[in-house]
Amino acid sequence: MLAFVCFIFVCCTCFMCFTFYAAIHFIICGDHCSLTYSAGALGGGMMLQGLSVDSSGPSFTPLVVVELVSDAKEETIGWLLNKIRDQQHDGGAELLVEQLGPGVGAQEKENPNLFLVGATWQRLLSGAEDVGLFKESTDGSMRAFTCANKHNFKDFGGDGDGFLSMAECQYIIKHELDTLRAKDETHVPGYKQAKLYPGKSIIRRLLSKRILIQIFPLHDKEELKRLSFSWYKKVKLSLQPLDDIRHYYGEGQALYFGFLEYFTFALVPMALFGVPYYLFDWEDYDKYVVFAVFNLIWCTVILELWKRCSASLAYRWGTLSRKKAFEEPRPGFHGVLGFNPVTGREEPLYPNIKRQLRIYLVSLPFVLLCLYLSFCVMMVYFLMEGWALSVYDQEPTFWTGVLLFIPSIIYAVVIEAMNLIYRYAAEFLTEWENHRLESSYQNHLVLKVLVFNFFNCFASLFYIAFVVQDMVLLRQSLATLLITSQILNQFMEAFLPYWLQRRRNKKMIRKVQKRRILEDKELPLAEQVRLEADMSTYLGTFDDYLELFLLFGYVSLFSCVYPLAAVLVVLNNVTEVYSDAFKMCHVFKRPFSDPAANIGVWQLAFEAMSVIAVVTNFALIGLSPQVKTYFSDSETHLILWTVAAEHGLMAFKFILTFLIPDIPKHIQIKLARLEFESLEALKKKRQLHGG
Amino acid sequence: MLAFVCFIFVCCTCFMCFTFYAAIHFIICGDHCSLTYSAGALGGGMMLQGLSVDSSGPSFTPLVVVELVSDAKEETIGWLLNKIRDQQHDGGAELLVEQLGPGVGAQEKENPNLFLVGATWQRLLSGAEDVGLFKESTDGSMRAFTCANKHNFKDFGGDGDGFLSMAECQYIIKHELDTLRAKDETHVPGYKQAKLYPGKSIIRRLLSKRILIQIFPLHDKEELKRLSFSWYKKVKLSLQPLDDIRHYYGEGQALYFGFLEYFTFALVPMALFGVPYYLFDWEDYDKYVVFAVFNLIWCTVILELWKRCSASLAYRWGTLSRKKAFEEPRPGFHGVLGFNPVTGREEPLYPNIKRQLRIYLVSLPFVLLCLYLSFCVMMVYFLMEGWALSVYDQEPTFWTGVLLFIPSIIYAVVIEAMNLIYRYAAEFLTEWENHRLESSYQNHLVLKVLVFNFFNCFASLFYIAFVVQDMVLLRQSLATLLITSQILNQFMEAFLPYWLQRRRNKKMIRKVQKRRILEDKELPLAEQVRLEADMSTYLGTFDDYLELFLLFGYVSLFSCVYPLAAVLVVLNNVTEVYSDAFKMCHVFKRPFSDPAANIGVWQLAFEAMSVIAVVTNFALIGLSPQVKTYFSDSETHLILWTVAAEHGLMAFKFILTFLIPDIPKHIQIKLARLEFESLEALKKKRQLHGG
Repeated sequence: MLAFVCFIFVCCTCFMCFTFYAAIHFIICGDHCSLTYSAGALGGGMMLQGLSVDSSGPSFTPLVVVELVSDAKEETIGWLLNKIRDQQHDGGAELLVEQLGPGVGAQEKENPNLFLVGATWQRLLSGAEDVGLFKESTDGSMRAFTCANKHNFKDFGGDGDGFLSMAECQYIIKHELDTLRAKDETHVPGYKQAKLYPGKSIIRRLLSKRILIQIFPLHDKEELKRLSFSWYKKVKLSLQPLDDIRHYYGEGQALYFGFLEYFTFALVPMALFGVPYYLFDWEDYDKYVVFAVFNLIWCTVILELWKRCSASLAYRWGTLSRKKAFEEPRPGFHGVLGFNPVTGREEPLYPNIKRQLRIYLVSLPFVLLCLYLSFCVMMVYFLMEGWALSVYDQEPTFWTGVLLFIPSIIYAVVIEAMNLIYRYAAEFLTEWENHRLESSYQNHLVLKVLVFNFFNCFASLFYIAFVVQDMVLLRQSLATLLITSQILNQFMEAFLPYWLQRRRNKKMIRKVQKRRILEDKELPLAEQVRLEADMSTYLGTFDDYLELFLLFGYVSLFSCVYPLAAVLVVLNNVTEVYSDAFKMCHVFKRPFSDPAANIGVWQLAFEAMSVIAVVTNFALIGLSPQVKTYFSDSETHLILWTVAAEHGLMAFKFILTFLIPDIPKHIQIKLARLEFESLEALKKKRQLHGG
Repeated sequence: MLAFVCFIFVCCTCFMCFTFYAAIHFIICGDHCSLTYSAGALGGGMMLQGLSVDSSGPSFTPLVVVELVSDAKEETIGWLLNKIRDQQHDGGAELLVEQLGPGVGAQEKENPNLFLVGATWQRLLSGAEDVGLFKESTDGSMRAFTCANKHNFKDFGGDGDGFLSMAECQYIIKHELDTLRAKDETHVPGYKQAKLYPGKSIIRRLLSKRILIQIFPLHDKEELKRLSFSWYKKVKLSLQPLDDIRHYYGEGQALYFGFLEYFTFALVPMALFGVPYYLFDWEDYDKYVVFAVFNLIWCTVILELWKRCSASLAYRWGTLSRKKAFEEPRPGFHGVLGFNPVTGREEPLYPNIKRQLRIYLVSLPFVLLCLYLSFCVMMVYFLMEGWALSVYDQEPTFWTGVLLFIPSIIYAVVIEAMNLIYRYAAEFLTEWENHRLESSYQNHLVLKVLVFNFFNCFASLFYIAFVVQDMVLLRQSLATLLITSQILNQFMEAFLPYWLQRRRNKKMIRKVQKRRILEDKELPLAEQVRLEADMSTYLGTFDDYLELFLLFGYVSLFSCVYPLAAVLVVLNNVTEVYSDAFKMCHVFKRPFSDPAANIGVWQLAFEAMSVIAVVTNFALIGLSPQVKTYFSDSETHLILWTVAAEHGLMAFKFILTFLIPDIPKHIQIKLARLEFESLEALKKKRQLHGG
């Protein structure tokens, strides 16, 4: 019975994958027009220098779009544009900026305040030095780019065109816009309530006062087409083009996809091990000890190895030894004006003690309350489960058999819904805590969301495993939860945004077609920019990592009682690669690249999960009938041995963390060589000055 | 009976402290002559510049002594002295060097090859820049010293005399000597077998071929007198003069004494808590649960707080943000000549795989064998213990009662002896493993010694506590082990070297007095240098930290069954401060200062011990009759609850490690400010170049 339903689930998932595939293929091959740019307009984004592209287009190649509210005052717009255009020593950004012309079907309600920002090559190169970009030098090592040594870098030809990727150029422009600072203005011209003080980032103030709607980088359709072709258009078993992804989306994105791929590959041995286990020991719940031991070692080893992989990637991409820039306060941060003790600049200060009070007196109780609610929901689920079981016991037909799964499915849906609602609450609370730095905001948000999601998803499994101690029910619950949440996730993440975007695309094309007959079916620049401005904003890798984290939890915690979990997760990850790739390319606005050197706080989260997995697996081993018969004379001995073994493995785990270096040897040597060279150069300089 | 013997032990320890005190006072007040320098000769070590000090003395103030073997060839000596004197751009060290004149009673067997090394102020200042010294600048922050900005530093007056402490000058000279490199010499002139290659450190080759016996810095007797007065001469309850210790001995030493002091203070609440516990619950072995819980929290908190203390000290002394210099191969390292992949220089290479084989196939089995031997000795001890008990049972008199303690005392002595012998074996093995870097050598040595010492000292206690489960015996063993090892340690560490040194001093004075009648009872420079050359060499803080580590173990692991342990350790630490201070000042050669930013690998060792302490204390709680009666119905529940509580606390401990920042807020701000300033300076420089 159980086997049958599981089989149906697996079929469902597979079917889903294939329909999704088919959908993508259909879209890309059949519905080409709406998704490709005029090649002349932006294609070859590398030929940026002062090319007049189109009669109606700007006199430079646009890289970034700045959208102000449609009723923004003339005075404000003029002031901002001057700031962007001004020379650097006058406090400007020295960038090129132009207003976007009206679209083909210019309507009343169309926002006229869209501005295209670009820059000259010289400006971009000096910006690259400002942001501390690392590029490959002619001797093959990664070095911080400096204009003085520009000819020592690989691929630096002519006056530097083609040296920086479009994503890098966009990142530099964003950085330069972000560091546009007020000088002696006390408020934004035209908006008395938008206060400024010397040194305040203008863009952040405009964003927080909602005068500026958004800043986003433009897609490069030619490159995007190439990327999507090598990424997901051909059905193949090769690896993802991580370097291309990094080239187009930046290091943060590429690391996510790298991790997703690594995680999938890491699961393969487990899946291979799990299938025969599942097939031949199907109704024998006792023999999961071997699998639990395998699990233990697996989750310890793969995270350690990932650190090395991640370091290799980050070195290749030049973010490993890149210094972190000084962090600005986040746009939403507010407080009483004072002097920052670090920079000495005037900026709002917010007493730490107030923030701590908000965290411990409001956020913490709220999280606890939510956990309690989640617990209550779980109890209701167990009541339903009991009721379904009693119905099945009274009348064991096929339909009452199916009924057995209904509570789990409902519970899984409720869990997803609660996670979603809680997410908004957590964002609101973390915003209200008024963190000064984006990183601190992110850490608090991740912590809140992780604790709740962990409890929400796994509490029922822990309850079944260790309180009820019913391994059959555990297996059944795990399967239902895993499969339902996978289906829901794929739907929420890819299908829904895709259909919304498709509707928008269609509308835009229809609008254009109304006014003029398109020779080629491509959109003119003005329309394409407006189309992209309306696309959903990609909110970062948070949700993607969170999903992986929960999947990792399902696999590492309980997969010993349900070996097929690994197979399901592998299947899910494969479709996840495709759906994530698709949504990155065609559903969302292009995100700014993020020069990440590792997966950050998520490494910690996964490691915490692996520690919990060790404890859980040992507890499951201790509960297994096999082990129990071995220690049949004394339960005390059983527990003591289990605890001793657990402590031993935990100690081993920590020793392993020390023994396996986080950075592979050959990269360590390269880094040491760079450091040695800079020390030697310094010494020489000194001796020259001294002599 | 037990109480009585313990009382005797405590009295013994107290008596020991006082006699030691009295001895020190006697030496310092009554026996002044042999330990003070001629004030003119070296006192005011800060007035270094070209002062002709004495008719027979050198033309500069000597800082460091280089001792070659007495039969060193003229050719070699001349070559080395030229290297030291040569200009820097000729590959020399640009230092001042002179041969030490013969002593008053010049004898045949006296080594003539003692050389005094000094330097001009200009040279020392440029050396300070080379080694990356941090000094306090006029705005109160710690900055890397540079000659260009020398006037921005506090206390920099005139041409810089008095700016660097004598210890810093000596450190600089040592660094300059160490980095004297061979150019085109293929071997040391006069010694064909002492091969050289371009870039090889000359001093290290001379040391490894035993042509150079030693390099040591000279004491500054005036300053030493002041230091010892404020440190230990006056009986007082104030803190140690850590800044003065750092000024005279460098940061590594000062951090050790800081840690010793911190550890003693941290023990005070435990001692205060322990005394009434000990007095009123003396025969009630059940009530140690409260103490165990106290222990748990104590050992978690104090290590976290120490990190902050240590960071504060290191910031004040300018070592916190000091960059580590590039590490040279250690003198004993040998291998086949090749090219270092990092520096590109020619240097011996030794394949890592060979080293790993030596570690895993020889060292590891050897350590395991030693552990097995230690285990056998422990078993013999238990046999003896059983025999003594049977004697006491047959005839319970006072003397057979004393006999009960004899096995423990013998065992304690044997443990100390085994630790000592093993120490030599470990040093030999680690040397043989042929580590390239001193730090890697140290880590492997520490690991070997720690594992063995931990097992050797605590195995019997663990055995008694968890296998025999006899808390009375545990208490008795702990007391005997602790007290015996303390007495032995104080004897080995302070008394023995002191008497040896005293004999040497006396001999030297007698020799001088034979030849000439001293007007003042002070030694002339030549004799003083020879006297110091003969003093024992201080081998670093290894043994001192090891002793503290074992004491920490006794207190944190088992003090709940013997609350007086904390009191004993406090007493021991107080005498330790005095005996260590005394031996540093009067028994050993002055050590070169070591710019440490923290206590290094010992922090890790203490943290590992605190984790073990958590597990042990929970196990002891689980074994306590009090808890057992509470869970009288089910032993399984008892164990499960204990394990759950232990896991909870362990998790809390790790969370605490994240929550408590390692560096106090105000220092974080100062560091951030420095970094921000350097970033801003860089940006300005760029804009200047660009504009």
